[in-house]
Amino acid sequence: MNFSELIKQRQSNRSYQSKPVEQEKIEQCLEAARLAPSANNAQSWTFVVVDEPELKNRVGESVARLGMNQFVNQAPVLIAVVVEKPIFLTRLGSMVQNKDYPLIDIGIAVEHICLQAADLGLGSCIVGWFNENDIKKLLNIPRDKRLALIVALGYPKDVPREKRRKLREEVIHFNRY
Amino acid sequence: MNFSELIKQRQSNRSYQSKPVEQEKIEQCLEAARLAPSANNAQSWTFVVVDEPELKNRVGESVARLGMNQFVNQAPVLIAVVVEKPIFLTRLGSMVQNKDYPLIDIGIAVEHICLQAADLGLGSCIVGWFNENDIKKLLNIPRDKRLALIVALGYPKDVPREKRRKLREEVIHFNRY
Repeated sequence: MNFSELIKQRQSNRSYQSKPVEQEKIEQCLEAARLAPSANNAQSWTFVVVDEPELKNRVGESVARLGMNQFVNQAPVLIAVVVEKPIFLTRLGSMVQNKDYPLIDIGIAVEHICLQAADLGLGSCIVGWFNENDIKKLLNIPRDKRLALIVALGYPKDVPREKRRKLREEVIHFNRY
Repeated sequence: MNFSELIKQRQSNRSYQSKPVEQEKIEQCLEAARLAPSANNAQSWTFVVVDEPELKNRVGESVARLGMNQFVNQAPVLIAVVVEKPIFLTRLGSMVQNKDYPLIDIGIAVEHICLQAADLGLGSCIVGWFNENDIKKLLNIPRDKRLALIVALGYPKDVPREKRRKLREEVIHFNRY
C-alpha cells in the first residue's frame, strides 16, 4: 500500500471489535510516534498506553462522560498523550511566534500512530475532548501536566466511508492567498 | 515501502537540489494534506503554494532573515499554511478544553505533506519560525489570519541520517504515567 492509498484507508473509527490488539502491533504504533519529527527535535511528549481492561474502561468513561465519544469504551487500547515541558529554544519560539509548538508536534506524532495502525489493519480515532482531571488521576499523571489527546486503537467494526472534505479550490491556492 | 519504512525515510531536509518539483507531485502532496483528519472535520486551513521563483525567494528570505533556516531558499517550493477560523463546535472545544485544535490539525495535515513527499522521493522540512507579517504581505494573506507553518519541498541533497530520538522507556509507559 503506498502512502496515498494509506491515507484513504485511515479513517476515524467509531466502532470496534472486542478482539484484542497484538502487543507487537501496539509497539509498532508507538515506535511510529517515537520517530515523529518535532520542533527543535524537542519530543515534548509522553505516551501512556492503557490496556488493562478495568482501568481502560474507567478512562473510557471519563472520555464518554460528556455525552460524546461513547464509542471509546469499545476500543481495547487507549493511548493518552501528555504534553511535556519543551526545551528552552522551543519555549522561546512558542512565546516569540505565539504558537504552541508542542501541540503541533503531538498532532504529528499521534497521526503517525493512526497511519501506522491503518497500515497494520487496525482502526483508530483521535479524541480531544474529555474529562482531563479525572483521567490524570486514573493514570497518575502529575497535576501540572496537560493531557493533549487520547487515541483509541483496535480492530474496527465500521466499514470504510467516503471522506467528506472541502474542495481543492477552497483550501489550496498558488502564490497568492 | 510500508509505513514503518516510510517514517524512517522521511527526514527534515536542510539542503536541496535546484531540480524543480513536478507539478503532479506537488498536487499529490497537497491532496494528502486535503484528506487529513481534523477536529470535528473542521479543516481550518488554507495551503498557499509558492513556486514562482522570485516570490518564492522573497518568502524564503523572510524565513531566513532571523539567522536560522538559511537552507529554505534552496527549496524550489514553499507551502505556507494559514489557520482559518474553525467551526463553532471546534472553537467551543478549544475554549473549554484549553487546546488550540486547529494547530494540532495543521500539524497532522503538514505531516501528511511530508510523508507523501518522502513516498515520492522528495525531501521536506517544516519551519515554524519566520517573519510572519512580511510573508503575509508577500502572499496577500489577510492581516487578521495566522500563518502557522511553512513547508519547504524539493529534491533533497542531504543523505539519510540516523534519527536521534529519546529512548522508548523515556516516552512510553503502560497504564501508569
